[in-house]
Amino acid sequence: MAFNDRFLRACRREPVDATPVWFMRQAGRYLPEYRTLRKRYGFLELCRQPELAAEITCMPLRRFEVDAAILFSDLSLPFLGMGVPLTLEEGTGPVIEAPIRRTADIARLRVLEPEADLPFVLETIRLLRAELRVPLIGFIGGPFTMACYLVEGRASRDFSRVRALMFQEPRAWHALMALLTESLSRYARAQAAAGVHALQIFESWIGTLNPLDYRMFVHPYLQRLMESVCLTGIPVILFGTGTAALLEDLAETGGTVIGLDWRVPLDQAWARLGYRVAVQGNLDPAVLLTPFEVVAAHAERILRQAGGRPGHIFNTGHGLLPETPPDTVARLVDWIHTYRLDPPVEGRG
Amino acid sequence: MAFNDRFLRACRREPVDATPVWFMRQAGRYLPEYRTLRKRYGFLELCRQPELAAEITCMPLRRFEVDAAILFSDLSLPFLGMGVPLTLEEGTGPVIEAPIRRTADIARLRVLEPEADLPFVLETIRLLRAELRVPLIGFIGGPFTMACYLVEGRASRDFSRVRALMFQEPRAWHALMALLTESLSRYARAQAAAGVHALQIFESWIGTLNPLDYRMFVHPYLQRLMESVCLTGIPVILFGTGTAALLEDLAETGGTVIGLDWRVPLDQAWARLGYRVAVQGNLDPAVLLTPFEVVAAHAERILRQAGGRPGHIFNTGHGLLPETPPDTVARLVDWIHTYRLDPPVEGRG
Repeated sequence: MAFNDRFLRACRREPVDATPVWFMRQAGRYLPEYRTLRKRYGFLELCRQPELAAEITCMPLRRFEVDAAILFSDLSLPFLGMGVPLTLEEGTGPVIEAPIRRTADIARLRVLEPEADLPFVLETIRLLRAELRVPLIGFIGGPFTMACYLVEGRASRDFSRVRALMFQEPRAWHALMALLTESLSRYARAQAAAGVHALQIFESWIGTLNPLDYRMFVHPYLQRLMESVCLTGIPVILFGTGTAALLEDLAETGGTVIGLDWRVPLDQAWARLGYRVAVQGNLDPAVLLTPFEVVAAHAERILRQAGGRPGHIFNTGHGLLPETPPDTVARLVDWIHTYRLDPPVEGRG
Repeated sequence: MAFNDRFLRACRREPVDATPVWFMRQAGRYLPEYRTLRKRYGFLELCRQPELAAEITCMPLRRFEVDAAILFSDLSLPFLGMGVPLTLEEGTGPVIEAPIRRTADIARLRVLEPEADLPFVLETIRLLRAELRVPLIGFIGGPFTMACYLVEGRASRDFSRVRALMFQEPRAWHALMALLTESLSRYARAQAAAGVHALQIFESWIGTLNPLDYRMFVHPYLQRLMESVCLTGIPVILFGTGTAALLEDLAETGGTVIGLDWRVPLDQAWARLGYRVAVQGNLDPAVLLTPFEVVAAHAERILRQAGGRPGHIFNTGHGLLPETPPDTVARLVDWIHTYRLDPPVEGRG
């Protein structure tokens, strides 16, 4: 079977025979075969055993004709190598036992050495690279999102402690961001060297910042991270939620693809980003809990907004919900692949 | 002492001698005198006893020269009258024992009768009206935000079940919104009749919708609610969070003032809203956890963005955090009142 490069072509904004599609969290809790495995192993254990992590990565590929695989892993794993003890539970996400609150706390941290600290992730990538017939997407958390977990200790509604630290101790903040950015750059390059075809940066909580604070406290680090990944030659998808006020800024980071959440109309967002970047998104994951005719109507709205322009990768606007019926996902993938926009009618405006 | 009408003048976009200021959650957990009272009474008990609720409403006025009082109450109280049992704990917010998930659940609900169901709220307003020398702001939840609590059962990160219901059972959704809108209209009018000088609608979670879904599933109800409150003649503040993609739509509801969260630059947001509405906001509440020179710098940024244009009410972009030092709030209020923009220099562009 030939290698399916639709996803990579769309990242480069080249024409494709059908819109490529994959889903955030496509390998996970909504799949019965995953839940069966989870009964026998802890979440972290699954991440640390390359055979199991590779197996979970492949689970959705056996069910759906998705155009890319995303590594089964967790964005908090670099903390293990940076000297930050954490517990990891599905649903709540990572919980940091001793959150970072002041300069002295930052001195406790060390820069990640991916080959020594996270060899199992790189081994998972090598196993998958040899086997897959679709591109493999690696991923990292964005430096702001990683700082959110470090400072708050866990996911919160609006991460106000992070902003308090940023405003009150800008030196500590910049030291923390420099350290995270260096660690994440190394991790991204190590994933590329091990064989991922593309990388997604989950800067998930970036939408809690206003554009002025984003520019001052985060943008330079995202740019530095992008430069560092750019040298590997793989496309980079930059994803965040609640980014309606930040789109122009995010396009300026140098990301190859900007991932949109479901809150922004894709056509308006792409116009603001500029057509020099590709876009990924942005079906509301809640739509997948409804009957298929509703799903198809929402998916069609998005494909019409994309307008057949090269450079659109279909995805949900956030991770699949645990209640998502796998059959709906299967039908949607086929529906996307066979959908064709009506050809423009001659003589109409 | 004369009645201070700065806040009401700003709502009407009339010139004022200083920018009026009040804070969301100014009567609450960060005040030691409130915490002392809370040790003796449950939260709901405080809401239900007019003398106590009036006392708490006045607590910030004894400490700070704020230009408005906001009723001490909770947006979930109408559920008590609508036949929805709930528990109410500070921190988590309302928890609905039997969430609304289908049409049959909606049939259980009845329309609120404020005078019969919530007489204690109206009595609190009458007590305060006789006593206060600043305007009293009443409040209600917006219909979407109330539906979020009813459907999810409690606050959640992104309220995906609400959107699933909306997409899957639009008839049930519209029935629910019609019922909520009628109940909230009655509640708003009853508060106005009891004597509030202005009303804030907390449509707090509206930013979880994209503009197309907002238009179809929520906008008509917000407009209907606004029309109904408009007849009372009091100004209405419409507040939501994460509304960067919705500003033009919110301005069209007919709200007198649009409350902005901290994520949007006030100048850009006001330009998009149009200068026919007043704006309220939008200091990041996390800033109040930092030293006063940082607070003043952030406050100045906002006052410069407002540019001395009539119709700006200073506030935080979300409720005060429990860790907020009352002294910082006191200093900020005085600082806002004495701040003057540099006069424009003749001959400069």
